[in-house]
Amino acid sequence: MTAKHTSTQVAAEEKPLGSGWRERWHEVIFEADTPWGKRFDVALLVLILLSVLAVCLESVRELRETHGLTLRAIEWVFTGLFTLEYGARLISVRRPLRYALSFYGLVDLLAILPTFLVYFLPGSQALLVIRALRLLRVFRIMKLAHFVGEAQLLGAAMRASIHKIVIFIGVVLSIVLIFGALMYVIEGEENGFTSIPVSIYWAVVTLSTVGFGDIVPHTVLGRVVSAILMLMGYAIIAVPTGIVTVELSAATRAANNTQSCPSCGASDHDNDARHCKHCGTKL
Amino acid sequence: MTAKHTSTQVAAEEKPLGSGWRERWHEVIFEADTPWGKRFDVALLVLILLSVLAVCLESVRELRETHGLTLRAIEWVFTGLFTLEYGARLISVRRPLRYALSFYGLVDLLAILPTFLVYFLPGSQALLVIRALRLLRVFRIMKLAHFVGEAQLLGAAMRASIHKIVIFIGVVLSIVLIFGALMYVIEGEENGFTSIPVSIYWAVVTLSTVGFGDIVPHTVLGRVVSAILMLMGYAIIAVPTGIVTVELSAATRAANNTQSCPSCGASDHDNDARHCKHCGTKL
Amino acid sequence: MTAKHTSTQVAAEEKPLGSGWRERWHEVIFEADTPWGKRFDVALLVLILLSVLAVCLESVRELRETHGLTLRAIEWVFTGLFTLEYGARLISVRRPLRYALSFYGLVDLLAILPTFLVYFLPGSQALLVIRALRLLRVFRIMKLAHFVGEAQLLGAAMRASIHKIVIFIGVVLSIVLIFGALMYVIEGEENGFTSIPVSIYWAVVTLSTVGFGDIVPHTVLGRVVSAILMLMGYAIIAVPTGIVTVELSAATRAANNTQSCPSCGASDHDNDARHCKHCGTKL
Amino acid sequence: MTAKHTSTQVAAEEKPLGSGWRERWHEVIFEADTPWGKRFDVALLVLILLSVLAVCLESVRELRETHGLTLRAIEWVFTGLFTLEYGARLISVRRPLRYALSFYGLVDLLAILPTFLVYFLPGSQALLVIRALRLLRVFRIMKLAHFVGEAQLLGAAMRASIHKIVIFIGVVLSIVLIFGALMYVIEGEENGFTSIPVSIYWAVVTLSTVGFGDIVPHTVLGRVVSAILMLMGYAIIAVPTGIVTVELSAATRAANNTQSCPSCGASDHDNDARHCKHCGTKL
Repeated sequence: MTAKHTSTQVAAEEKPLGSGWRERWHEVIFEADTPWGKRFDVALLVLILLSVLAVCLESVRELRETHGLTLRAIEWVFTGLFTLEYGARLISVRRPLRYALSFYGLVDLLAILPTFLVYFLPGSQALLVIRALRLLRVFRIMKLAHFVGEAQLLGAAMRASIHKIVIFIGVVLSIVLIFGALMYVIEGEENGFTSIPVSIYWAVVTLSTVGFGDIVPHTVLGRVVSAILMLMGYAIIAVPTGIVTVELSAATRAANNTQSCPSCGASDHDNDARHCKHCGTKL
Repeated sequence: MTAKHTSTQVAAEEKPLGSGWRERWHEVIFEADTPWGKRFDVALLVLILLSVLAVCLESVRELRETHGLTLRAIEWVFTGLFTLEYGARLISVRRPLRYALSFYGLVDLLAILPTFLVYFLPGSQALLVIRALRLLRVFRIMKLAHFVGEAQLLGAAMRASIHKIVIFIGVVLSIVLIFGALMYVIEGEENGFTSIPVSIYWAVVTLSTVGFGDIVPHTVLGRVVSAILMLMGYAIIAVPTGIVTVELSAATRAANNTQSCPSCGASDHDNDARHCKHCGTKL
Repeated sequence: MTAKHTSTQVAAEEKPLGSGWRERWHEVIFEADTPWGKRFDVALLVLILLSVLAVCLESVRELRETHGLTLRAIEWVFTGLFTLEYGARLISVRRPLRYALSFYGLVDLLAILPTFLVYFLPGSQALLVIRALRLLRVFRIMKLAHFVGEAQLLGAAMRASIHKIVIFIGVVLSIVLIFGALMYVIEGEENGFTSIPVSIYWAVVTLSTVGFGDIVPHTVLGRVVSAILMLMGYAIIAVPTGIVTVELSAATRAANNTQSCPSCGASDHDNDARHCKHCGTKL
Repeated sequence: MTAKHTSTQVAAEEKPLGSGWRERWHEVIFEADTPWGKRFDVALLVLILLSVLAVCLESVRELRETHGLTLRAIEWVFTGLFTLEYGARLISVRRPLRYALSFYGLVDLLAILPTFLVYFLPGSQALLVIRALRLLRVFRIMKLAHFVGEAQLLGAAMRASIHKIVIFIGVVLSIVLIFGALMYVIEGEENGFTSIPVSIYWAVVTLSTVGFGDIVPHTVLGRVVSAILMLMGYAIIAVPTGIVTVELSAATRAANNTQSCPSCGASDHDNDARHCKHCGTKL
């Protein structure tokens, strides 16, 4: 009997040799190489999108009042189907606990729980939107090679710039804290800056250039300080952009070839280069 | 008789040899190489701009009430002229159906239809603004070599980054969905988050840093979650920027070098290449 | 007698040899090489800043009501001084007409005219803020070598990307036109989209992610279309950023050295390189 | 006895040899190499975060009214602890005055002063948020090597682009000044543009794409001018982004290579250099 893993990536490489029902189920549910596996994934994709749509529609008061029963019934049908699928997954994997505690296992569970929870905690069915996260699974299983490669590139660029981004977030949080406290002192409660936390919220709204306009400076000094904060927000955005661009550029270059010429040592060759572009030596 | 194509690019290369009225019309209407062809294009450009302006003005209530008849008359004149032009195009091309179903053919039709449709569907004349799309045609015909090259460069950069952009849009939609549902649960109907779709609309307004301020969080937790969403929106914008910059940089580099190898004919060399990277021949 | 030019750059190279009062005035007023020329420029800089401040303060109702006479007197003093300076410039240059019609000559004139114009056109003294433009002159004369070089770099990058920027603006205007008309049809006058021009204004406010919130969609379809427009605005900003970054990078590189190695042909050397970094050959 | 410096960086290199109580205190308070020094820093970090939190909470009216005494007591405890720490720092350094006048010394003082000042200046305790700045010290002392390197990289990129950024700020301020005055003339006091300073504030809000919506154009011309300002703000943001990206790219490249030439000692080589660019020696 072959060793089976919940990790799809590994499973995709070493095809299951056994032919028990569990193996066949696993192939259909967890993979997308066989025709039935593909059909299952497409059906799941459609089901997830429909169930997210149903949850969204149910939250609209007019629809809930006119079609409440129908929408509730639909929700139970979807939850039933997803519960069956969750059960099937638990049965068909070799190590159910490992699956249940994996990221996807938890998402699968969270996607069905709120429907049951609603009896104890009213309104919690809105959390069913977590079902949208399940789309990630289908995305991954479908082995969209191109997309996965690009996503890994983006991810690598993010990871490479994590230190710079942490510093950037630290600077942003400090600015927001200082300006929030400053504006609380300058504007005061009568102008809507009712407390430092509220002022900090205002500073985030302003620095990020969102600018709701629910809280707004009224004093001359407050407007001067706001103008400085806005221009800072307008300029500071250049920093994460610069960081991501430089790292993405480096990640893209790293994904390319890096042979160096045995004759002149130049190393700035393209992927498909067979001769040094500077001296013509064969690489 | 020469083979005629609706495609201007091809037609521009193989000049029509025939001299029937249809050939001459085609030359004037579809091309811009002859003096009359140029005059026709400039006249069309002015007409289109004027007609778009007329549609815009007619939508202003005060103008419609005082100069309604004049503006309506002007609209009919423009529509008449464009209908004549559409007819002339249909007649002068070799394959009218192929033109009628092409992108430009459909835009030409859509640019005149609403005036007639208004008898059945009041208000539809606002759609006459589609006429603005016709400007694209003049733009293309005028063979603004520089602009076309630059536009192709931008287009190439866009196409090269399409996979990354799809991932980015997927991430943005997921964030907006999750935060929308979350805010619906946190803030509730009494604070303006009347349904999940409305909350998702709010999340788009906030993440994109537009921040209308028509819907605004009032609870403490809602403001904390909003602040996180804003800072995400502020930082995430770095990603498409980085993608486009890197791809544009690559596209620019690729466009800059056009030497081809005298030995093997390869033409994808870098700017500073002195030897063919495929066969080593000196360039 | 030497040929004199209003162009400071040229004048700076060929020092005036004559010693008449006109030459000395010219040296003091138009140049900044002599101690008196520097003092004149600094005094002018301070005067301009003070006069701009005075104009700003005069526009504040409370200050105008309490200190109206003082501020008006100050304005006349500044205008008097600037008129004297304008006269002095006219007299001290060789070709007064050429100066009067140059960019700086016109700005100098526009900076004093509104004070006189106010007798015919009330409120026009606010245009005195044009005086701020005069700061450019001081900036240029002070020959801030570094800044001029950097500004030229930025300017070169802008000029190199002008074609792409024109295309970008064309795309933005088309989007704004189409979405403006669409929202006028969808939302209608009762929701604040009173005419197509107003809707276009709204589309600009939304696409540029400013989001005042004075006009806001209320229908479901209008909000969906708005969300699309916002996400477009959020993503499209990557394009000008990418363009400027690539061109600025190219301009920076072009400002550096571009010698190529006589032995291996590599050309990616630094400014201060004396030997090829790939093969060690002397450059 | 060894020479002691308040500068932690220097102090870290030349370990204090003496073993008096002052040396031991200095080691614990100013450094983080010993177990006790680390514990002190972590405790300080927690204390600072808690005290900032306390100040924020005290500003909330409801909490102040219900738990006012407790919060006030907590504030005094924190201030007492920080005063003790300030005293300990003053005693344990060799040159107390130099420390007291250093950046960190001043921040340490400012972090405790407001509590005492509140008897003379009500509301000044909000300034206690300055305590957040003290986090910088812990950050620095903890010698988070990676972060410090990355921060220096960001700092270097900023410093290299300072000239371009000054030009950019100058351009932004000019735009804001001119458009502010223009809108004051166009819209006037009846539409909320009550003075030129207020109009300039509005121009900053608009150009930075914050868009509060508290002041909004109402006239047709005012909206046209606003639309131009918005599109300028939307496009101009590309400039600082481009600047930072190019400089960050250069700084990253410079930081990546650290080989030094065995012959002439030069160390400013590129990543792909195989020969010293100054003397040609093989690296």
